[in-house]
Amino acid sequence: MTRMANLDWKTYEQRVAKGDATILLPIGAIEQHGPHMSMNPDVLIPEGISDGVANELANVLIAPPISYGYKSQVKSGGGNFFPGTTCVNGKTLIDTVKDVLVAFARHGNRRFVLVNGHYENSMFIVEGIDLALEHLRHENIDARVMLLSYWDYVDKETIATVFPDGFTGWDVEHGGVLETSLMLHLHPQLVDMEKVVDHPAASFPPYDVFPSDPSWVPSSGTLSSASKATAHHGKLLFDVCVDGIAKSIGSHFKD
Amino acid sequence: MTRMANLDWKTYEQRVAKGDATILLPIGAIEQHGPHMSMNPDVLIPEGISDGVANELANVLIAPPISYGYKSQVKSGGGNFFPGTTCVNGKTLIDTVKDVLVAFARHGNRRFVLVNGHYENSMFIVEGIDLALEHLRHENIDARVMLLSYWDYVDKETIATVFPDGFTGWDVEHGGVLETSLMLHLHPQLVDMEKVVDHPAASFPPYDVFPSDPSWVPSSGTLSSASKATAHHGKLLFDVCVDGIAKSIGSHFKD
Amino acid sequence: MTRMANLDWKTYEQRVAKGDATILLPIGAIEQHGPHMSMNPDVLIPEGISDGVANELANVLIAPPISYGYKSQVKSGGGNFFPGTTCVNGKTLIDTVKDVLVAFARHGNRRFVLVNGHYENSMFIVEGIDLALEHLRHENIDARVMLLSYWDYVDKETIATVFPDGFTGWDVEHGGVLETSLMLHLHPQLVDMEKVVDHPAASFPPYDVFPSDPSWVPSSGTLSSASKATAHHGKLLFDVCVDGIAKSIGSHFKD
Amino acid sequence: MTRMANLDWKTYEQRVAKGDATILLPIGAIEQHGPHMSMNPDVLIPEGISDGVANELANVLIAPPISYGYKSQVKSGGGNFFPGTTCVNGKTLIDTVKDVLVAFARHGNRRFVLVNGHYENSMFIVEGIDLALEHLRHENIDARVMLLSYWDYVDKETIATVFPDGFTGWDVEHGGVLETSLMLHLHPQLVDMEKVVDHPAASFPPYDVFPSDPSWVPSSGTLSSASKATAHHGKLLFDVCVDGIAKSIGSHFKD
Amino acid sequence: MTRMANLDWKTYEQRVAKGDATILLPIGAIEQHGPHMSMNPDVLIPEGISDGVANELANVLIAPPISYGYKSQVKSGGGNFFPGTTCVNGKTLIDTVKDVLVAFARHGNRRFVLVNGHYENSMFIVEGIDLALEHLRHENIDARVMLLSYWDYVDKETIATVFPDGFTGWDVEHGGVLETSLMLHLHPQLVDMEKVVDHPAASFPPYDVFPSDPSWVPSSGTLSSASKATAHHGKLLFDVCVDGIAKSIGSHFKD
Amino acid sequence: MTRMANLDWKTYEQRVAKGDATILLPIGAIEQHGPHMSMNPDVLIPEGISDGVANELANVLIAPPISYGYKSQVKSGGGNFFPGTTCVNGKTLIDTVKDVLVAFARHGNRRFVLVNGHYENSMFIVEGIDLALEHLRHENIDARVMLLSYWDYVDKETIATVFPDGFTGWDVEHGGVLETSLMLHLHPQLVDMEKVVDHPAASFPPYDVFPSDPSWVPSSGTLSSASKATAHHGKLLFDVCVDGIAKSIGSHFKD
Repeated sequence: MTRMANLDWKTYEQRVAKGDATILLPIGAIEQHGPHMSMNPDVLIPEGISDGVANELANVLIAPPISYGYKSQVKSGGGNFFPGTTCVNGKTLIDTVKDVLVAFARHGNRRFVLVNGHYENSMFIVEGIDLALEHLRHENIDARVMLLSYWDYVDKETIATVFPDGFTGWDVEHGGVLETSLMLHLHPQLVDMEKVVDHPAASFPPYDVFPSDPSWVPSSGTLSSASKATAHHGKLLFDVCVDGIAKSIGSHFKD
Repeated sequence: MTRMANLDWKTYEQRVAKGDATILLPIGAIEQHGPHMSMNPDVLIPEGISDGVANELANVLIAPPISYGYKSQVKSGGGNFFPGTTCVNGKTLIDTVKDVLVAFARHGNRRFVLVNGHYENSMFIVEGIDLALEHLRHENIDARVMLLSYWDYVDKETIATVFPDGFTGWDVEHGGVLETSLMLHLHPQLVDMEKVVDHPAASFPPYDVFPSDPSWVPSSGTLSSASKATAHHGKLLFDVCVDGIAKSIGSHFKD
Repeated sequence: MTRMANLDWKTYEQRVAKGDATILLPIGAIEQHGPHMSMNPDVLIPEGISDGVANELANVLIAPPISYGYKSQVKSGGGNFFPGTTCVNGKTLIDTVKDVLVAFARHGNRRFVLVNGHYENSMFIVEGIDLALEHLRHENIDARVMLLSYWDYVDKETIATVFPDGFTGWDVEHGGVLETSLMLHLHPQLVDMEKVVDHPAASFPPYDVFPSDPSWVPSSGTLSSASKATAHHGKLLFDVCVDGIAKSIGSHFKD
Repeated sequence: MTRMANLDWKTYEQRVAKGDATILLPIGAIEQHGPHMSMNPDVLIPEGISDGVANELANVLIAPPISYGYKSQVKSGGGNFFPGTTCVNGKTLIDTVKDVLVAFARHGNRRFVLVNGHYENSMFIVEGIDLALEHLRHENIDARVMLLSYWDYVDKETIATVFPDGFTGWDVEHGGVLETSLMLHLHPQLVDMEKVVDHPAASFPPYDVFPSDPSWVPSSGTLSSASKATAHHGKLLFDVCVDGIAKSIGSHFKD
Repeated sequence: MTRMANLDWKTYEQRVAKGDATILLPIGAIEQHGPHMSMNPDVLIPEGISDGVANELANVLIAPPISYGYKSQVKSGGGNFFPGTTCVNGKTLIDTVKDVLVAFARHGNRRFVLVNGHYENSMFIVEGIDLALEHLRHENIDARVMLLSYWDYVDKETIATVFPDGFTGWDVEHGGVLETSLMLHLHPQLVDMEKVVDHPAASFPPYDVFPSDPSWVPSSGTLSSASKATAHHGKLLFDVCVDGIAKSIGSHFKD
Repeated sequence: MTRMANLDWKTYEQRVAKGDATILLPIGAIEQHGPHMSMNPDVLIPEGISDGVANELANVLIAPPISYGYKSQVKSGGGNFFPGTTCVNGKTLIDTVKDVLVAFARHGNRRFVLVNGHYENSMFIVEGIDLALEHLRHENIDARVMLLSYWDYVDKETIATVFPDGFTGWDVEHGGVLETSLMLHLHPQLVDMEKVVDHPAASFPPYDVFPSDPSWVPSSGTLSSASKATAHHGKLLFDVCVDGIAKSIGSHFKD
């Protein structure tokens, strides 16, 4: 059993007693991902990948995910104006990451991996980590934290396989082949391929505007088409992420 | 389908378009609940009860729970020093509640029910609601929020049935018959009745001390014994809560 | 002399030099308490009780009260919409409690008793204490804090005497027999028994609503009738609180 | 009756109903003022002067003082390192001032006078006012606030009388003739003239240093000698402040 | 004259009176950029480019830059542990951006372009903009903001010219050919090409670690070699950025 | 070279290696200073004086100024309602000062001089310093900070020379002879003496009002006339400030 919240506290206490358990914390968002998919892939994919990693490594515990993430941006998530996209302020995410890390460290944990599933979260997570480590140093606790976004583990070979017609970049993969394939693999009941809207990948000017301009975004909310997503590709993507992340963790926390 | 995050955004948009959907937001905590039970009953019970309510009422949507709650206190949750109890600062919970309510209101929602499963959360939720409504008024949005803790719906008759030997109060029901029975009903795989530690209900002086004194708390972490918990009682408790909450909602939001 | 602010600093310095002085900090609110009573009982009662405690114990110092408390709630204080009820945000109360504790600790004090007179304050005081102790630990200072609400010291015997017709709970004692009797004992000039509005104790549904619904609250602002309040009962209540609190302090700080 | 917290809410409601009541809010500090005087003159003097003003003007209400002020500075208050000096962070004072003003404005009040008794508070009060008015504008409320420090009302003639040997400036009047005379007039029991330490007025370099250097400050904690303070001078000072402030209020709020 | 702070206020008032002036706000960082260059290119380059843009467009005003930016990250700026890298917390940058935008909007300005020169700033600027616009909406002010990072305007043709041996991505361009060439064009006296350390472009694993691992970063602090930087390439880069940004502004604010 | 941001990091590292470098941090504001002068004298004068000090003392480094200061007040800066006056909230300035000091201290610096050019900043800088030193103590770093406002170094003799017709006090020197003369000496191209508006020094009542009353302020925005400002007087003022500050630094940091 690797979901920490499903453990009773006595079992948990044993698992973390030596300080060599690795806590995986998935961080996502509630955000529209097109008319063909649920609004939680940014939570469920990093949680699913964390499950996979926990199967490969010893003494990994997965913390309950932080479900509400930073505000969706037009060029990476379609924008914060879509019904259903439900996001929090930057300071709120910073504080949540900080507090949760500090709490886990006080249990004796020293090894953390934050598995991000929502691009817009990244820098606020960085700040939450930095403030947590600063706080912990004031308590004479030295913890080590890895931060990763799972898509950074998809290698060129997998890209070539999954995007045979050419890859337009992670930014416009919002609700596209990557996320849809992973959801088909992990949670097929939350995807309805018949509702996929086929459209060319969105392209954007080199700047952002605020307030956001909805006309920049395909009306589907996706930034590229998911029509070629398959569960098979989802499995490929899942495996390459799980393997890569497991290797990174094994390597970084080897001592 | 009533879990909002499992909907695609187009479906969600239709469900909330008229502003008469009711958003149920479960708020819990990750907190030890004795050696016989997982650490997430404060999340899973309000979420399970919300599911029950959604089955009884039209157009209810359940938001992803806020899983990390306010710091466990000795006299209601055993205290914040147990391994596994993983809590956030008061300001963080206030901000999270505020931001999530504001985000949902911007989708057009005007009816909210916050279903609390962790006693210590209550006043920070109150403040989050107050700041959210103040913020929304500045945007000329009038929303209405109900806040409830599910155990307040357990009536005297049910108490008499579930606690035949006498009821010692909700405060010491931490990890006791109430929560354990509900978990046996909702998530039996997360309870191991063989690990229940039988002990008299904890009793406390009329004050609190900080730093907490662990010797005040039974070493099991529970404040009363769960040994008489049953799934049958869990079903009774579940039903009385679901029915009562559904009636409250129907009555308060009837216009 | 036990009101610390009335001392000159040289005298104060001597009193706290050994670190064994006990600092009592009354925390209240400015809140309507019915048409028959001033709006400061939540400040004056804990301050008066603190005076009583200081008469019973050696080396107790009473700090100036924190007069502005957390927002009045319908079911415990009538609600925050009454003219005269003048409350602050949760974060403000948290910060005030934190800063004042840290300042007193830097004078060398290690023993604190926070005497709360306003139900709604409790959890924000808890958080202020927790943050203060965390901050002080970063300065290698270990302080100990007791937190109490004076009414928790009223025992069953006194309740039976003071409420001969039955006790409906502390929640609805807002502006009722408890507070009015204590004010008649401590500050009779601030009570006008002729203005008491007699009405049955308020009863509430098991949930709260926001914005508050004024129709839930008796138009007097009191939640139960003060018509049977007497200075004699006030003296009884005062004595039982003072004695109990003095015993708790003596016991907790005996080493 | 002019102390608002001593009123019952119905009486208060009548007093503020037309929006033409003037709320006086004394803001002070708990700060050492030499071995001859209590630590609350910065609270008691503005409160006493407010009482005087309320006697001269119609429909003035005095709010409970904000007792804990900003950190004492070496060159105006001796410094924050003296035992007994008990101060809060700048943000805490800002928030307190803001919240209290907003709460009073929601009762219908539009006229405020903040009577400062502690030099170091000034700019944090300014910010609290600015944030309060900004917040109130978002609620379509226009309030008007006067801010004053009472010593700014002492005119040249009074200075010549009270300081016959020459006046060295308000900065070094900490615990000196001004404050001691006013306390002898208002609260003689809190002054012990036999304990006055006679020393030349402190003089300081044109810069400040942090951490503070205690050797800059007379060991008495006073910055000038109070030996020539008298209750008679206190009455003169009191009268000139009360009259001046009353005239300012009458003039500023005449429409 | 286009540097707004160099104008007198009467001239400024005329320039912004119609609300059609465009305010350019450069945002940078003080951060090491290798042994061959000063620590302010992230400030000076966006300021220099802003000057260029102001020469091409009518009624552009350049605000004083925000010089202190968000904490340098290993994979984009070498990391926050280098002597000289002087950065602020995320919340501080968010608040600064928010306050400055609100202040300029209150002068009547409605058109803003934030010219970012430090990669790590981006998301905190986004949040500052979002909070500013939310605040301004509460004051019934609708402003429009463009956000850009100048390097996003370097097109493929220019890349091919400036990086004839292949382009390894903007991330590792820290202190490399891009920034060094631009500084050679704009501020040659702040570059000493003799001190350039030639090394292969840094490559990093797909994750980040905290605390940072200095061994990941070339000891020079640069992430790629600046040895092929020239003032001529700097001019090319400058021109393509200025032209592109001017066109974007002209297009976005044409109405 | 003494502007730290113009150094490369290797050179900076050497300069601060022993911890005996002195970091000068100018802090100003963007604020109208009359129709005859640019809006940046509060930044440029302390920066220019810092340059002068750096020429007199060994191993002084000047940090990039904090350009955006606290809100202009009517009686010292004309008020925050003038077009061009661009100020930040108090908390923002506090945080900026705190973060920048902490960052510099982490480079090994222990000696700081904050050179203030904007009266309204003073107390927020004090708080920023206090919070920085508190934070650094939690990291076992003891730093020392001097805070000064340059005008406090103008002695009586210089005042007699520069203000032959009598000196009306620093408060009303906003945009007057002091600042204008210094700008004529340091940045003559930013002053246009032909646009000086000649008017008597402003005089104010002993209180402040919020919202500000523009009719209190001369329509020029200056609080006294700059008509007698000269570059020659600017040189005198500059020299007396530079010499005095250099002496203060030499004396305070002699060990």
